Amino acid sequence: MDSESLKKILENVRSGKLSVDEALAELKNLPFEDLGFAKVDHHRNIRNGYPEVIYCEGKTLDQIKRIVEKLMQKNNNIMATRASVEVYESIRQITDDAVYYEDARIVVVKKRDIGKSSKMIAVVTAGTSDIPVAEEAAVTCETMGQWVERVYDVGVAGIHRLFAKADVIMKANVIIVVAGMEGALASVVSGFVDRPVIAVPTSVGYGANFGGLSALLTMLNSCAAGIGVVNIDNGFGAGFLATLINKD
Amino acid sequence: MDSESLKKILENVRSGKLSVDEALAELKNLPFEDLGFAKVDHHRNIRNGYPEVIYCEGKTLDQIKRIVEKLMQKNNNIMATRASVEVYESIRQITDDAVYYEDARIVVVKKRDIGKSSKMIAVVTAGTSDIPVAEEAAVTCETMGQWVERVYDVGVAGIHRLFAKADVIMKANVIIVVAGMEGALASVVSGFVDRPVIAVPTSVGYGANFGGLSALLTMLNSCAAGIGVVNIDNGFGAGFLATLINKD
Amino acid sequence: MDSESLKKILENVRSGKLSVDEALAELKNLPFEDLGFAKVDHHRNIRNGYPEVIYCEGKTLDQIKRIVEKLMQKNNNIMATRASVEVYESIRQITDDAVYYEDARIVVVKKRDIGKSSKMIAVVTAGTSDIPVAEEAAVTCETMGQWVERVYDVGVAGIHRLFAKADVIMKANVIIVVAGMEGALASVVSGFVDRPVIAVPTSVGYGANFGGLSALLTMLNSCAAGIGVVNIDNGFGAGFLATLINKD
Amino acid sequence: MDSESLKKILENVRSGKLSVDEALAELKNLPFEDLGFAKVDHHRNIRNGYPEVIYCEGKTLDQIKRIVEKLMQKNNNIMATRASVEVYESIRQITDDAVYYEDARIVVVKKRDIGKSSKMIAVVTAGTSDIPVAEEAAVTCETMGQWVERVYDVGVAGIHRLFAKADVIMKANVIIVVAGMEGALASVVSGFVDRPVIAVPTSVGYGANFGGLSALLTMLNSCAAGIGVVNIDNGFGAGFLATLINKD
Amino acid sequence: MDSESLKKILENVRSGKLSVDEALAELKNLPFEDLGFAKVDHHRNIRNGYPEVIYCEGKTLDQIKRIVEKLMQKNNNIMATRASVEVYESIRQITDDAVYYEDARIVVVKKRDIGKSSKMIAVVTAGTSDIPVAEEAAVTCETMGQWVERVYDVGVAGIHRLFAKADVIMKANVIIVVAGMEGALASVVSGFVDRPVIAVPTSVGYGANFGGLSALLTMLNSCAAGIGVVNIDNGFGAGFLATLINKD
Amino acid sequence: MDSESLKKILENVRSGKLSVDEALAELKNLPFEDLGFAKVDHHRNIRNGYPEVIYCEGKTLDQIKRIVEKLMQKNNNIMATRASVEVYESIRQITDDAVYYEDARIVVVKKRDIGKSSKMIAVVTAGTSDIPVAEEAAVTCETMGQWVERVYDVGVAGIHRLFAKADVIMKANVIIVVAGMEGALASVVSGFVDRPVIAVPTSVGYGANFGGLSALLTMLNSCAAGIGVVNIDNGFGAGFLATLINKD
Amino acid sequence: MDSESLKKILENVRSGKLSVDEALAELKNLPFEDLGFAKVDHHRNIRNGYPEVIYCEGKTLDQIKRIVEKLMQKNNNIMATRASVEVYESIRQITDDAVYYEDARIVVVKKRDIGKSSKMIAVVTAGTSDIPVAEEAAVTCETMGQWVERVYDVGVAGIHRLFAKADVIMKANVIIVVAGMEGALASVVSGFVDRPVIAVPTSVGYGANFGGLSALLTMLNSCAAGIGVVNIDNGFGAGFLATLINKD
Amino acid sequence: MDSESLKKILENVRSGKLSVDEALAELKNLPFEDLGFAKVDHHRNIRNGYPEVIYCEGKTLDQIKRIVEKLMQKNNNIMATRASVEVYESIRQITDDAVYYEDARIVVVKKRDIGKSSKMIAVVTAGTSDIPVAEEAAVTCETMGQWVERVYDVGVAGIHRLFAKADVIMKANVIIVVAGMEGALASVVSGFVDRPVIAVPTSVGYGANFGGLSALLTMLNSCAAGIGVVNIDNGFGAGFLATLINKD
Repeated sequence: MDSESLKKILENVRSGKLSVDEALAELKNLPFEDLGFAKVDHHRNIRNGYPEVIYCEGKTLDQIKRIVEKLMQKNNNIMATRASVEVYESIRQITDDAVYYEDARIVVVKKRDIGKSSKMIAVVTAGTSDIPVAEEAAVTCETMGQWVERVYDVGVAGIHRLFAKADVIMKANVIIVVAGMEGALASVVSGFVDRPVIAVPTSVGYGANFGGLSALLTMLNSCAAGIGVVNIDNGFGAGFLATLINKD
Repeated sequence: MDSESLKKILENVRSGKLSVDEALAELKNLPFEDLGFAKVDHHRNIRNGYPEVIYCEGKTLDQIKRIVEKLMQKNNNIMATRASVEVYESIRQITDDAVYYEDARIVVVKKRDIGKSSKMIAVVTAGTSDIPVAEEAAVTCETMGQWVERVYDVGVAGIHRLFAKADVIMKANVIIVVAGMEGALASVVSGFVDRPVIAVPTSVGYGANFGGLSALLTMLNSCAAGIGVVNIDNGFGAGFLATLINKD
Repeated sequence: MDSESLKKILENVRSGKLSVDEALAELKNLPFEDLGFAKVDHHRNIRNGYPEVIYCEGKTLDQIKRIVEKLMQKNNNIMATRASVEVYESIRQITDDAVYYEDARIVVVKKRDIGKSSKMIAVVTAGTSDIPVAEEAAVTCETMGQWVERVYDVGVAGIHRLFAKADVIMKANVIIVVAGMEGALASVVSGFVDRPVIAVPTSVGYGANFGGLSALLTMLNSCAAGIGVVNIDNGFGAGFLATLINKD
Repeated sequence: MDSESLKKILENVRSGKLSVDEALAELKNLPFEDLGFAKVDHHRNIRNGYPEVIYCEGKTLDQIKRIVEKLMQKNNNIMATRASVEVYESIRQITDDAVYYEDARIVVVKKRDIGKSSKMIAVVTAGTSDIPVAEEAAVTCETMGQWVERVYDVGVAGIHRLFAKADVIMKANVIIVVAGMEGALASVVSGFVDRPVIAVPTSVGYGANFGGLSALLTMLNSCAAGIGVVNIDNGFGAGFLATLINKD
Repeated sequence: MDSESLKKILENVRSGKLSVDEALAELKNLPFEDLGFAKVDHHRNIRNGYPEVIYCEGKTLDQIKRIVEKLMQKNNNIMATRASVEVYESIRQITDDAVYYEDARIVVVKKRDIGKSSKMIAVVTAGTSDIPVAEEAAVTCETMGQWVERVYDVGVAGIHRLFAKADVIMKANVIIVVAGMEGALASVVSGFVDRPVIAVPTSVGYGANFGGLSALLTMLNSCAAGIGVVNIDNGFGAGFLATLINKD
Repeated sequence: MDSESLKKILENVRSGKLSVDEALAELKNLPFEDLGFAKVDHHRNIRNGYPEVIYCEGKTLDQIKRIVEKLMQKNNNIMATRASVEVYESIRQITDDAVYYEDARIVVVKKRDIGKSSKMIAVVTAGTSDIPVAEEAAVTCETMGQWVERVYDVGVAGIHRLFAKADVIMKANVIIVVAGMEGALASVVSGFVDRPVIAVPTSVGYGANFGGLSALLTMLNSCAAGIGVVNIDNGFGAGFLATLINKD
Repeated sequence: MDSESLKKILENVRSGKLSVDEALAELKNLPFEDLGFAKVDHHRNIRNGYPEVIYCEGKTLDQIKRIVEKLMQKNNNIMATRASVEVYESIRQITDDAVYYEDARIVVVKKRDIGKSSKMIAVVTAGTSDIPVAEEAAVTCETMGQWVERVYDVGVAGIHRLFAKADVIMKANVIIVVAGMEGALASVVSGFVDRPVIAVPTSVGYGANFGGLSALLTMLNSCAAGIGVVNIDNGFGAGFLATLINKD
Repeated sequence: MDSESLKKILENVRSGKLSVDEALAELKNLPFEDLGFAKVDHHRNIRNGYPEVIYCEGKTLDQIKRIVEKLMQKNNNIMATRASVEVYESIRQITDDAVYYEDARIVVVKKRDIGKSSKMIAVVTAGTSDIPVAEEAAVTCETMGQWVERVYDVGVAGIHRLFAKADVIMKANVIIVVAGMEGALASVVSGFVDRPVIAVPTSVGYGANFGGLSALLTMLNSCAAGIGVVNIDNGFGAGFLATLINKD
């Protein structure tokens, strides 16, 4: 319950407009989410310029459409992740503002402009197969108002490719490293920067990579300090965390 | 190789002070670590106010003493992690400046003051058994010049304890959440803050926690975005990452 | 063998109607399941008002139809779990009494009314993707005569949503918590109720959730006492166990 | 915040004893744990006749002593689990009311009598090595006022031993089954009772039991419905859950 | 090299028909498989009345046809396992003697009669879903000349069903127990017989059965001695081993 | 209940010595273990010449002594497995008949002679470190009256060593193969014999053998049919199973 | 940067053709990959006679075509691995020089001849199902100019088949052993040769082979020294490593 | 059986010195290991200059002493791995030629000189804690006559340290890379050399490294081709394999 509402109720009690029992009832009916330390999501999102996020996997086209329609009433930006072309086409039936980022599998409905950060987030991948996850991270950052630079296909097996791009990486305020297979790139990158690295293991690989477990363990056990790891293939989570860090 | 050194060599070639072959030899002898994109660790550390760090596990008292003696010549602060009382006593034989943080199992040798950050890092634990790992994180932050607030024993099984401390957590710029057993605290905390959460799974528990795997998986699979995970019991890594984020 | 049958045989031996050898043979021919400590399932089910249950996964439509036909002779209610629409249509060819609960993937054939419990079972989910498993639990409870309240989509990442429904949960006699991803909801719920919690991990999620392992371990390692865990996605098992507990 | 306190504040606002701003400040200072849906633990415990519980593993004798001293001020019963003889002796230095249950590794300090339940909980083990975990469960139940019957060493490899005790098991309102190695006992017991079974896998065994994983998986995959599983070796959790179920 | 061939060569050396060098060359050209301790498979099979076995999974219809054609020249029986209907139809194009066991997914081409054993092998399953694996075992045994009795759907959750069939099981010389989910049946059966039990875990189940791992671990950790375990779903291996044991 | 007892009760009913109610009561008091299909262990053991077996791991010296004293009243042989020297010395305090097999860690108390089988069991190991487990198997067999031949240290890395002993192995009626590390020996042996092979994985090795998992999986996945696998390091189980198979 | 280029720049500085600043700029613009210790891939490949390699899994036909077109400009051989027939047909649209190795799933575009090694690499498989992986290894070696001999279907379950081919294996300079299921072949082969063995576990098998884990662990734990293991099903990696070893 | 012996027997048959039956008997008594394709170990070792190797783990001091005494009769070098100081002292009681390599935990008894290879093997470690495993590899190589260069503590987190040593690594004919924690070094090294890399994962680390699993998976999944992996901590195996490769 925010101070405003609470103050008003107390004043009404004081002035006699509300009896003590009426006030008690009203306090109990107030949604918990107004208590100040746990604001309703959409309020927080609008204030921060964050979009509303819909995770599409496991939802029907109908469910997604209904959620988008409801969210559009709040005049906030909307981001639908893990979205197929069919999802995009469904959303297009509601609004012309929808843009589809195919690699990232993200649909963005832009209702208002949210500027662009002055600090840069670098999104780095080990291989080309890691790009979809990297794009999910990059588009997430951009939709949340961040300046992003992409540095793709610079895996450790040909480390000169990485060093050729070292200047971009070293200028970044946050670095997202996306890597499958052995996932060693995060350690190498973290070793020559002074900024936080967010490591995203991907399920790219086969055999003993066990669906991304290999890259995940590599990143968790990195001998380089300064790395935070997110779930396998979780580009959105990495982008969201990078944005939080990059916010002034 | 930095521009200064390179320029000087080129000028000497130009002026005839160096023959082409002498210049080639000199270029080859220059340490790779001077090439600009990969600065030598201790230069970076001194510039950033970071201490030199010694990971003591698996090192003998003699080895640790010799490393400390060498590092003390650089006039930088030194932090020895995973340090037993015996390690502390060994270091005390060299210097009176050593302080032992028993819970954190960290020895700090302070050679110069590095100020204190204006933004705060909250270190939160689920249980009392998670405190040693939390202290490793907290002392790491403090030794690197960060303002830290501790919020201990506020696990989700008695969630009112957490909320009673919600104000401290919500004022933090970065939150480190340390939890063993089911590790659910990171999700709950991340759900009501707008700042990055660093989650540290601990090996606290028994049976199906499989040495911390349970808390680790919980944190990686969190439905709350904005969480970066470090290795099981890796308080130092969490503190280091939090410091990087908290740096202006 | 129940006392009735046994007594009758003994009396017939006594009265000379049966010779000792005839009595021995008869005793040997009596099905083992009548011996009192291990009643035949369907007797037990009818007495308790439990339906006959068919687990459809891995059974052909023909097999299911034949089983339903046989069970219908006992005038007991029938519940077919993990049932596709095709299963429902097959059963409809036999009887008009079949009802299909699509989300729960359950077909119920109701032959007699079994009342409704006075105590309530709350079925709670963390996300919307957990609803099918929750519905399997809820419909199982209801088909077994239990009063169920549903509290869906109240995961710990937005804990105010949970608290807004705290009154329903606190009125329940048993609480079934259904959660995938990190599965932390069970701990939080168990922390503020005084009643048994049945935790159902779901396979909802990706990457390091390893098909539900993440939520399963979380629930088993809960720091909140009072939680019993069932298999991943086992809504039926949770509903059945909740019903046993809720029975007076 | 409970209604009493809240009402009093509102009345004081109404009567003018408190200004609106003073009331606001007072409301903010009230501990969250008084808000009604999340009562402070010890209030709940006293009301329910539950003891205060201390999990001793990983705590020093000093820490345990200090906690016991503090809890003794509330005039409630105290139960220290995973307690060595040394723990017992430490507690004996504070109070003569401490009793040590050696097999269960539990110390109980009894300050008030809490009666005994009319319904019975059966604690059943597969082997003799499972007895310590079973005793932890049984003593937990008894300390919480439950009537317990022990049925030990009736594993499925000699199933006649189980059936010789079938009458005790069938009279129980809740059955706790404690089993290591292959853990099959829970399924067999659940197959011939109509009551909830709480299954406790133990780490008893070697080789491919992988520290209790074998029994844990067996119990989770039971083909018998009506089983809730707790963590490996978690006798306390099983006893606590059984007590919640057994409460009228 | 068998004694016959060797003796003949030596005699030819003695008689001068072969020079020493010719004898040496001939010895080197003799196939290793004739050396006595490692007979060629088909010789062994014909002598023992074993069929030639083709594992069809991963072979094309063409490959299977060609193998069958080649094997048919030896006038031995042939058994094709993991065979689809298409495999059966392909083999039927070559010979009319092929019989298809649909549940077992086995095609048998019978060229000669091999009698029937006087000792009996019981094949027991926990559930109906385990029947295909059980049939693979049973048909394997029968094709190798064994007398088989089937006892299906007698899982431990309704143990009276097992005991109703105890007489058949107790008359068996070898018992094959096929069970998925928790796989507890092998322990129970082994507990009341004096004969070897071959346990076959199946992949029947879901969630925490992890593709049969649950039943596999249960069977390996059985507290009942006298159990040998084969691979998950390996009905053929169980039938083959049972036949070896049952051979006089 | 066996026919004898049952017949006597029925005759007493017939003759009027027992009333029907008295007969009912008597039937209920008869121990279940007399019902014919589940004989009491020690009756079975004495009849079969099997020793009474005590698994010592996790039992105190006192407990073991008491069990031995009780078992000695039955005039049957006794075998204590996983027995330390201390266990042996404790048993020696009771009886002079105790013999200690140090490698096997087995104490045997021999009360009566049980002859020796005419068929032979070969116990084969890959390395010298596997010998303790092999000895547990061998001594188990011998104590149960079997003729055993030992073939040690013939692992596949030097396969000529195995073949030099092929004659012993090929004469055996049952072969127990004990192997750690990669556990490949079972497949090779099974490939050139026509008899059942019992494979015992051992925990010998390090690193990626994960406590015996490596050898266990190898043996379960053997491409050679005719292998039954027991738990890691379970020499007793292998010896027991081999004895059951070797019994005429 | 190689000495040649560097020397030329220095000479130009010396002679005044380049100013110091121009030299600095030129040095900075030189690609990092020319620095000598990290040559550009294609230079290295051409010098060594290695083909350019494209891993096709997860790439679209379009992407592959574009890569092939680009690589064809370098007049080097090209090898596309994990290539379907569709990939082959796409490449055929660009060049007539493409050859498709169906079993190996490799397309080779041969632009120049690279001779054939004088030392031989033996590629050995345990079963017929392992042949695709073996062919990937063999064709990789051959495309890189190596002399390969294939020895297929010589698994340890019929070890005479292996010995019949021992002469080929013993003549090899490097042996690649490809095996699924229990993967024991690598140990046996390594035991009787003096040359390096490269072991390739395959995912062939079912149940407890866990997608190749079984064979992988077997090979890693081999008691025979002299074995290097590559990833599950990684025929290309094995062929590449064998080629490196076989190079003079 | 080697040609010499065989020829002699045949000649004796021819000359009549041996009857055919005597020749047959003699052939059967010849040890299998003489058959040519499977030479006795010690012959092979002496010919190749390989030492006899004793793996000490799990052997008593007495056993080791006896083995050394026996091997010393062959006048070959002896290498005892995983040897404690006590092992060394035991061997010193037999011979003064024993040298103890403490870090490598290897005792070498040198009986004859075996020269030194002209090609070099580089042994590279990521951290200082990996040195014992690296020394096991290096001393193994050296004892087998190889020229070794050590490059220690050049892990990827400070990649400039690696590049400062790139010249040594690039001159090697074989590179052994020893790394724990995330094990990424093997990929990076393999990326800039044209020679075979042998990767040794170590158990150095904690938490989610799961005893070396992390580094093992990293190395198996390397995106750089040309890497063969050995077991965790298996320095000896790596040294042995490197020697085989390095032999001309």
